[in-house]
Amino acid sequence: VTTISWSPAMAEKAGFKHFMQKEIFEQPRALTDTLTGRVKAGSEEIFLPDLGLSEGDLRQAKRMVLLACGTSYHAALVAKFAIEGLARMPAEVDLGSEFRYRDPLVGPGDIVVAISQSGETADTLAAVREARAKGARAVGVCNVLGSTLTRETDGVVYTHAGPEIGVASTKAFTTQLMALYILAIHLGRTRGVLDAGATRRLVDQLVLLPGLVQQTLEREEEVRKVAEAYCQASDFLYLGRGNCFPIALEGALKLKEISYIHAEGYPAGEMKHGPIALIDEKMPVVVLANQTDVLEKVLSNMEEVRARGGKLIAVTEEDNRSAQALADAIITVPNTPPLLAPVTMVTPLQLLAYHVAVLRGTDVDQPRNLAKSVTVE
Amino acid sequence: VTTISWSPAMAEKAGFKHFMQKEIFEQPRALTDTLTGRVKAGSEEIFLPDLGLSEGDLRQAKRMVLLACGTSYHAALVAKFAIEGLARMPAEVDLGSEFRYRDPLVGPGDIVVAISQSGETADTLAAVREARAKGARAVGVCNVLGSTLTRETDGVVYTHAGPEIGVASTKAFTTQLMALYILAIHLGRTRGVLDAGATRRLVDQLVLLPGLVQQTLEREEEVRKVAEAYCQASDFLYLGRGNCFPIALEGALKLKEISYIHAEGYPAGEMKHGPIALIDEKMPVVVLANQTDVLEKVLSNMEEVRARGGKLIAVTEEDNRSAQALADAIITVPNTPPLLAPVTMVTPLQLLAYHVAVLRGTDVDQPRNLAKSVTVE
Repeated sequence: VTTISWSPAMAEKAGFKHFMQKEIFEQPRALTDTLTGRVKAGSEEIFLPDLGLSEGDLRQAKRMVLLACGTSYHAALVAKFAIEGLARMPAEVDLGSEFRYRDPLVGPGDIVVAISQSGETADTLAAVREARAKGARAVGVCNVLGSTLTRETDGVVYTHAGPEIGVASTKAFTTQLMALYILAIHLGRTRGVLDAGATRRLVDQLVLLPGLVQQTLEREEEVRKVAEAYCQASDFLYLGRGNCFPIALEGALKLKEISYIHAEGYPAGEMKHGPIALIDEKMPVVVLANQTDVLEKVLSNMEEVRARGGKLIAVTEEDNRSAQALADAIITVPNTPPLLAPVTMVTPLQLLAYHVAVLRGTDVDQPRNLAKSVTVE
Repeated sequence: VTTISWSPAMAEKAGFKHFMQKEIFEQPRALTDTLTGRVKAGSEEIFLPDLGLSEGDLRQAKRMVLLACGTSYHAALVAKFAIEGLARMPAEVDLGSEFRYRDPLVGPGDIVVAISQSGETADTLAAVREARAKGARAVGVCNVLGSTLTRETDGVVYTHAGPEIGVASTKAFTTQLMALYILAIHLGRTRGVLDAGATRRLVDQLVLLPGLVQQTLEREEEVRKVAEAYCQASDFLYLGRGNCFPIALEGALKLKEISYIHAEGYPAGEMKHGPIALIDEKMPVVVLANQTDVLEKVLSNMEEVRARGGKLIAVTEEDNRSAQALADAIITVPNTPPLLAPVTMVTPLQLLAYHVAVLRGTDVDQPRNLAKSVTVE
């Protein structure tokens, strides 16, 4: 007899040690699946047949209101930049658990975009009901076919992440970002902000994104070594600016969720208004330092941390020597258009949280106190 | 010869050990000074002669955009509730350091309210310039006569806090809240949302607020005992909902600034989407549990913390037995109308941070790495 050393659970994990790791590595495929049939390289056409809103609806709308909880809320914060930038349309972001109780100013002319992997997040559903009762239209961004959210909205943009088993969301998040980028480009095109050429260029960038994420994943060993060097820390700070500030929040949330380390995300520009008092050699600071218009400002934040003896982990492109020169540890990401950088920046942060948790011996796929979908209020 | 045991600095501190403590105790007076001449008990008249905007301007405006950094940003977050609630006018809040770089959608029809104690905060000033260049009107909320902010806005609502020496802002914050409440009521009255009776009732509540803060201060010893019990913790979580969520952020910021404890503020409804994984007996959780429409939800958040062995410090009214029954420690505040509760809730959090810092022996008035006004970007 031959003994088979694979358990059924391991088979499901396709050789990976944990579902979370498997799901992180599924991202290039999941991102491609979320693109397929909606956009095509070299074409300005965008297909969102289940959107439930006509081009006239999109043209007449005055405002987008993005509602979500947890990791999906961070996707909403990134989407605000894309929608305002590409469609020049005001976008407000709120937490489901806050929006529903504030007697919100929402009504006809507003399009609510509600984001929930499961489509069953209680606070988000209640917020959507409140907005629709006041006359707003609503679109769901959701990963589960036929979930409550998809039945209680005018239309839906599905993420094609496939089943996500790990409690800490990874591929659901990046596919939400992809779905929201497609929606933002569609909105910009429909509202006449983007011409055919600009739309094609953006679509071409989206099509390249899964490959960039793949390159990020090939650097896992680099990230694992950073995890090894810093996994004993009890506190972390994550700093970002612009559309990478939400990624600082998301990176910190991953570490909180599965390693139980007190990690906090902060807008880099706010550090000197308080958190800098915390900085010493025991508090690693993860800085998202991609090459954008605000890089100089981020570098100056890095210098402030360095001057106080803080340990800097920079997430940055290979050719960004100025950020690398200031850092104690470097995590490399491929060059990515700034609009889409949240996707390539978050992937190594997922891996960082994963490897820190593994090194600390916590239960990665079933972290203490957490449920996969929060279906209670 | 008689030796005088008071140094000139102590004299300036009027017998208090630190400027911060003195300034916390000056709040009833500073709040009264900020009211005086603007509102009067029993009258619906509001005087804001330096506002620089006519009643017509206020009626025609479409949106308020509140811009600030640090503690002033928390005042802006509270003000959003007051403006949207009392004037039914959309209010957006942004950080100076974020707004200025996002190519923001702002222009004619928007009124920017820029909040800065010193009036010299570089990021806030730059954000105001950007908004005015795009056609927005602007009002400053400021504590320093003739500061740059007051010269670069259409008008100003001064806070009459008097000089603030302690680096951690206290009386500047609560007087900003007072100024913003007056502005919100004026806006609601001018735009016809509040009738004379409703305006009078709100004014009467404002007039009572300094007295309520005084009652809070009389409980200093209660707060000091809580500080003594928990000052050894290395991490704190602060939870709030609605207009007390910004107060959770502010309470955490005070503790960060002067005690160097890693304290984080979180919306209570988001705890189950991640931070609850952090909860154990070593992480005290400060919960803002005043009696509002969302009290039931806050109580259920408290039960979740309790179920995971977390230590609960409840800030609540004397007659709120249900919150007290769940708490390990109680900090009492007087009954306050929910709209104004941020002022009475923040005062004991200032005292808590102060006493924790004193017990830990840090330099309260000159915390490491921090400057009083952040005049660099």
